[in-house]
Amino acid sequence: MVTERIRYAPLRSCIITPEQAAERIRDGMVVGLSGFTRSGDAKIVPMALVEKVKREQQKLKIDVYTGASLGEVDGLMAEAGIIRKRLPFQADRTMRDKINCGKMLFIDQHLSSVGDLLRSGAMPDVDVAIVEAVAITEEGYIVPSTSVGNNPIFTARAKEVIVELNTAQPLELEGIHDIFILDEQIARGPVPLVDPRQRIGIPAIPVDPDKITGIVVSDIVDTPSSVEEPDEDTRLMAEQLIHFLRGEVRSGRLPEQLMPIQAGVGSTANAVLYGFLDSEFTDLVMYSEVLQDAVFDLIDAGKVRFASASSVTLSKKYMDKLHRNIEAYKKKIILRPQEISNHPELIRRLGLIAINAAVEVDIYGNVNSTHVLGTHMINGIGGSADFARNARLTVFVTKSVAKGGRISTVVPFVTHVDHSEHAVDVIVTEQGIADVRGLAPVERAQLIIDHCSHPDYREELRAYFEEALKRGGHTPHVLEKAFSFHERYASNGTMKP
Amino acid sequence: MVTERIRYAPLRSCIITPEQAAERIRDGMVVGLSGFTRSGDAKIVPMALVEKVKREQQKLKIDVYTGASLGEVDGLMAEAGIIRKRLPFQADRTMRDKINCGKMLFIDQHLSSVGDLLRSGAMPDVDVAIVEAVAITEEGYIVPSTSVGNNPIFTARAKEVIVELNTAQPLELEGIHDIFILDEQIARGPVPLVDPRQRIGIPAIPVDPDKITGIVVSDIVDTPSSVEEPDEDTRLMAEQLIHFLRGEVRSGRLPEQLMPIQAGVGSTANAVLYGFLDSEFTDLVMYSEVLQDAVFDLIDAGKVRFASASSVTLSKKYMDKLHRNIEAYKKKIILRPQEISNHPELIRRLGLIAINAAVEVDIYGNVNSTHVLGTHMINGIGGSADFARNARLTVFVTKSVAKGGRISTVVPFVTHVDHSEHAVDVIVTEQGIADVRGLAPVERAQLIIDHCSHPDYREELRAYFEEALKRGGHTPHVLEKAFSFHERYASNGTMKP
Repeated sequence: MVTERIRYAPLRSCIITPEQAAERIRDGMVVGLSGFTRSGDAKIVPMALVEKVKREQQKLKIDVYTGASLGEVDGLMAEAGIIRKRLPFQADRTMRDKINCGKMLFIDQHLSSVGDLLRSGAMPDVDVAIVEAVAITEEGYIVPSTSVGNNPIFTARAKEVIVELNTAQPLELEGIHDIFILDEQIARGPVPLVDPRQRIGIPAIPVDPDKITGIVVSDIVDTPSSVEEPDEDTRLMAEQLIHFLRGEVRSGRLPEQLMPIQAGVGSTANAVLYGFLDSEFTDLVMYSEVLQDAVFDLIDAGKVRFASASSVTLSKKYMDKLHRNIEAYKKKIILRPQEISNHPELIRRLGLIAINAAVEVDIYGNVNSTHVLGTHMINGIGGSADFARNARLTVFVTKSVAKGGRISTVVPFVTHVDHSEHAVDVIVTEQGIADVRGLAPVERAQLIIDHCSHPDYREELRAYFEEALKRGGHTPHVLEKAFSFHERYASNGTMKP
Repeated sequence: MVTERIRYAPLRSCIITPEQAAERIRDGMVVGLSGFTRSGDAKIVPMALVEKVKREQQKLKIDVYTGASLGEVDGLMAEAGIIRKRLPFQADRTMRDKINCGKMLFIDQHLSSVGDLLRSGAMPDVDVAIVEAVAITEEGYIVPSTSVGNNPIFTARAKEVIVELNTAQPLELEGIHDIFILDEQIARGPVPLVDPRQRIGIPAIPVDPDKITGIVVSDIVDTPSSVEEPDEDTRLMAEQLIHFLRGEVRSGRLPEQLMPIQAGVGSTANAVLYGFLDSEFTDLVMYSEVLQDAVFDLIDAGKVRFASASSVTLSKKYMDKLHRNIEAYKKKIILRPQEISNHPELIRRLGLIAINAAVEVDIYGNVNSTHVLGTHMINGIGGSADFARNARLTVFVTKSVAKGGRISTVVPFVTHVDHSEHAVDVIVTEQGIADVRGLAPVERAQLIIDHCSHPDYREELRAYFEEALKRGGHTPHVLEKAFSFHERYASNGTMKP
């Protein structure tokens, strides 16, 4: 069974144990791990490395580059303290804590940029790439599993490649991937993709088989996603968005099938996508970075006719569903390298509708996607700015309050700017929607306060804006009170006065 | 002479006076004016409109869309109070004052985005386009003058087009332009440009000649640019940058001819470019939005072998030089629509080195390009984020202090974020350089404070950072003191303690 999956015969003798693979990782190395939002991540070798470090009480520190967040293994590595520096995204509680107490360095990086940062030598290069695969082709190429992520660039740059051949991932995933390799920037042509449904590459990752120094057999499943069910607030947000999009179609600003849709990672974006299920919209196409549960329901319901992304990140139930119906889904899904799923060139060309979640927004439409109180990292910017900055229609969604009402997500001044007012078109909360396109800052502030903020905070936001207006300026502020909501939360545990 | 320039004979009878043209602009209209950073702007018709409004004491308000800033005419229109809303950029003292006291609305917009905002109906469409030209071709197409800017999209979208045929602009400019028209996003292919020297379009702006309702003859020259001479500080900044680039070449991260260079508008970027004159670098190529004086000296010195942009913005002396040697310069310069000069697709593909000026930077590398004290607009974001967000190497330059030392341009927290830490690679002041690529926030802060801040402020910045570090977090801050430098300036007229 395993040898069947290794179709390039010379590599059949390269099977090693996870422990042997772990031996190849030495202190100070840069390790590139497959994995994008819990999917298709390297698992068994990092786990063996963690075990080895614990067993031998080793002082080993490595830099870890990934596609995006990994599954369980992120927490294990963080707990073992083996990561010196990590990029470009994480979403693990233990890792977050280590980052926020200064025990681990984190570079919060646009997901589309990692490849070119490596090509241009802006960061130390990858020593070892550890990449999950469902098969090795006749040419010795690597067939990835539930994500593509940065696997092509990691395997291309690494001095050696270790493959985790995962038999728990169905071999039928072969054919779902489309691997297009970008050239160096000095000699790069256009990316020829003009339709999300188009294949522009090959089905496996080209690699010099001599670079593969080991194949480790694994059967550990992807860590299932933990998205929360839609609730009353997310249902209201979805309703607002659908109503808005309906208006755009009616006024001729969007075609009936809309434009290709990108939806961010996490519970909020997933829940908002469910809004399309009961809508009149049909024949939708997605050009996204991650496909979560909702997309599979939309495909089943005939609402989404095609979806392109870099990974599928599913709960246990939807993972089983994918495995049972894989041949059917393969006709409607393509997985691409994250350089292609998130490429500014394609996002602008295709005219995407980008829907991403915000942590907080300010009255002028600047968006914080990453930090609590301006200081503590949550997960990271991920691909949100790849999409937001270049999409045709950039939408941010957030509930108007968090922590049982003690936090207003609409604030005078966001404590960290991931997306500037220049890039934000529409803000949606359960309270309403602010379409700020074509509006100057003072016009935007009124809309955002009136339509998006929670009634418990609206009067205070108005008072701030009124006071700021008296001071004048294009973007009026009362600087000494700009963070007053946050300062109050820090001292009283609530933003409420 | 004039009829010679109108080669499409039926339009020869369309010559009207500026006053007649001004009559066509009615209250509430959206007017698209040619002009990009003082160059090739519509002049005689807006001036006639201003005169008419004054003479007739008319209450006329229009929305004005442009390429970027205009020349003298921006101040005249602002003073006359005829602009209700303006986008995407301005750089005029009177206009700035009107914006900052709330008498005029301004949308500070990425220069590459205006076209797609119009195509997607995100803003009211253009009623009348007024476009400066050096000639009308046999087909009735418009040959622009010293800038292309948004002229193609304005003429395509406008209900009617008025041409300012400017005989003060040399007819020999014909052939310098390369007009490539983007399709609607639903049916758009790749932009086929793979080399800054490549022509991908046609030499004039296609327009239905029936839409041209008037041709006004003009001989008003472009308002000359007012860049300041390099000084000791800008010379030091240039030196830092050249030294850094030399190191990049030596370590193999950049090729000997570097990558195509973009340099921002204004005195600082212009002065820094002069640093290349005495450097070993040669055969450089520019892919920029504006070509200022320095570029012409670099071309003359054989340092720059080709330059692509959307406009040439020159002082009187360099304008004369261009006119005298136009045939020679035409072999080395192409002017393109700003959708192409600033296209994210091309900026990423070509791997640009983007050099732009900052108003202030914070210790984590966030950059403010637009606002004084977070509230008062200076000029606008222009194309800086088009380039910064997608370039291979994003450099921001600023003197470490302003206003005779009373303002530190390195601050704990910028009061407006135009470029987030995620997009900034290198910061240069006369004090030194911080290469923050591959660094986590706490690593960046140390470099930026130590290398870029002015000694007068360095200790206080260190103290802020130390205090912040004690509070923890991925991006440590002391929120209640984040704007302390600015608050002190507001009350004491200096940031010094």
